Amino acid sequence: MNMPFSLTLGGVTFLLAIIWGSPLIELMRRLKLGKKIRIEGPQSHMSKMGTPAMGGVLIVGWTVVIIIIVNIVQLLETFEVVESVAIPLGVMVSYSILGGIDDYQGLRQRPGVGMLARYKIWYQVAIALVAAVLIYWQLNDLHGWVAAPTVPFLLDIGIWYLPVAVFIITAGANAVNLTDGLDGLAGLITATALAAYGIIAFMQGQQFIVNLCFVMVGACFAFLWFNAHPAQMIMGDVGSQALGGALGVIALMTNQWLILPIIAIIPVATTLSTMIQVSSAVLSRRFLGRDLRPFRMAPLHNHFVLLGWSETQIVQRWWLIGLLGAMVGIALALV
Amino acid sequence: MNMPFSLTLGGVTFLLAIIWGSPLIELMRRLKLGKKIRIEGPQSHMSKMGTPAMGGVLIVGWTVVIIIIVNIVQLLETFEVVESVAIPLGVMVSYSILGGIDDYQGLRQRPGVGMLARYKIWYQVAIALVAAVLIYWQLNDLHGWVAAPTVPFLLDIGIWYLPVAVFIITAGANAVNLTDGLDGLAGLITATALAAYGIIAFMQGQQFIVNLCFVMVGACFAFLWFNAHPAQMIMGDVGSQALGGALGVIALMTNQWLILPIIAIIPVATTLSTMIQVSSAVLSRRFLGRDLRPFRMAPLHNHFVLLGWSETQIVQRWWLIGLLGAMVGIALALV
Repeated sequence: MNMPFSLTLGGVTFLLAIIWGSPLIELMRRLKLGKKIRIEGPQSHMSKMGTPAMGGVLIVGWTVVIIIIVNIVQLLETFEVVESVAIPLGVMVSYSILGGIDDYQGLRQRPGVGMLARYKIWYQVAIALVAAVLIYWQLNDLHGWVAAPTVPFLLDIGIWYLPVAVFIITAGANAVNLTDGLDGLAGLITATALAAYGIIAFMQGQQFIVNLCFVMVGACFAFLWFNAHPAQMIMGDVGSQALGGALGVIALMTNQWLILPIIAIIPVATTLSTMIQVSSAVLSRRFLGRDLRPFRMAPLHNHFVLLGWSETQIVQRWWLIGLLGAMVGIALALV
Repeated sequence: MNMPFSLTLGGVTFLLAIIWGSPLIELMRRLKLGKKIRIEGPQSHMSKMGTPAMGGVLIVGWTVVIIIIVNIVQLLETFEVVESVAIPLGVMVSYSILGGIDDYQGLRQRPGVGMLARYKIWYQVAIALVAAVLIYWQLNDLHGWVAAPTVPFLLDIGIWYLPVAVFIITAGANAVNLTDGLDGLAGLITATALAAYGIIAFMQGQQFIVNLCFVMVGACFAFLWFNAHPAQMIMGDVGSQALGGALGVIALMTNQWLILPIIAIIPVATTLSTMIQVSSAVLSRRFLGRDLRPFRMAPLHNHFVLLGWSETQIVQRWWLIGLLGAMVGIALALV
């Protein structure tokens, strides 16, 4: 096991990716890929209008390049490494393409809206199902991995692993997507969660996952350089869905997916806040005849924007909570 | 070696300290311990006027409480642990008191100026010398520590260890003090450096240093909750000198002080920028007859403030550089 190698790889990815930030911003400006804001967001978000909005390609692109290069080197030693890193990489790229189409439709065809949710969810499920079957098949038959398709410490859930895995991957993609609403938030939170799984994979001896995690962390950091408030570029679905989906796959492959809601506490809380807000509004209208909404605005971070917290305060505090969640998650995984 | 214990300790410190943030802010407001701004700072800093300015007591106070409690428990097993943690803790508290007097004079007796530099430096050196002698004596005679008073990989520098150690401790205190100029900057940078030394100490098997590092990280994080831009409280010298001094001692005790300039790259760069600015101004005035200043304003972060970077951009980017420095430092320490 080689942690310094993974860390160095992450550092190299950061340095390689960061050089391409400014040209990418310039390119997105020329292609007029600027953020369209939904009218129902907080007033303060209007200033984000026009910010280049598909910065996630910086993260996904460099992760793919570096991981492929690293695994071509490792291919000389063993074939299995490539095969197993292919699943998270495949999900990341697929979700990134899906998110890219979503972004593009949101910028051009249906400004501020994007791909229709009823189509998007089925594309997401289809990709997740392929990944779930591959993971299940690999874990059962192919390799002597550390991970096994069971609920840790509990029981072998057999074929029920498939719907669980599909749920984790799609929920991951959509949760990170929802979290991506303030400058730096989704990038910092996801990088922290990925680093946590990198450490867990290190303890398990899954070097290729450690490499993948820290390369993604390095790429996220390069993106965060340009995403600091006020953001020069925004991640977009092309980044957030890809990161969330990959995080779900990595959680499955370390077999520590039960602690994913702790390590990804902010995306989970964000998603829950939206679900509570929407269902409360729908149910209260139907049964009480009036509009009951527990939050001033969903998702959660907008509630705090309207409470008067600064964008930096929310992002820094959410990140501290995420870091605490990551530490608790690592501690639980090591038990 | 027990990393989960140290991480949990850090988490507990965070949760204990964060509760006391709001009462502390209220207390400092009542005692009128609000920041006085020097007139020669950037215009944008005027908004910091009046922010409670001795928030460092939150960090130092809780670190002392938790570390003493932990070591009372460990005292039952061994006496040496207490003895060795006493040096960083002693330096931290001494520098905190010195910084506190500095802060108090800056708020009351000489607004915006503080303790006169010619006195302060000698107090700092005196404290550092005591610590250096103790470390040198301990390393040589008392324990079979991992650390030894040598330049790593090079040679035993013998009694010259003392001036080197004094320099590292005082330079650490003053460098972090200089870095403390933007909301969140000193806290994030120091916490990152401490976490890096925590990992290095973990690899060396020095559990008491690991505990100390992560308790300080947890306490810094609790402070950072209230220090997010716009800051509700500022660290002050009571915090920055204490953190910097303790960081220097920890670097000495892990015997990885040669990589301190890499792990603490931001404080080092900040200090160098001030030294270059001052000496350039003095020398150019004497020898060229005109005022040559390479930076728009020292320390370094003010240069970028005047270049138009937002406070959050500078802090987030400096932190990314610091994190990269920490990773490189850890990698070098493991070689």
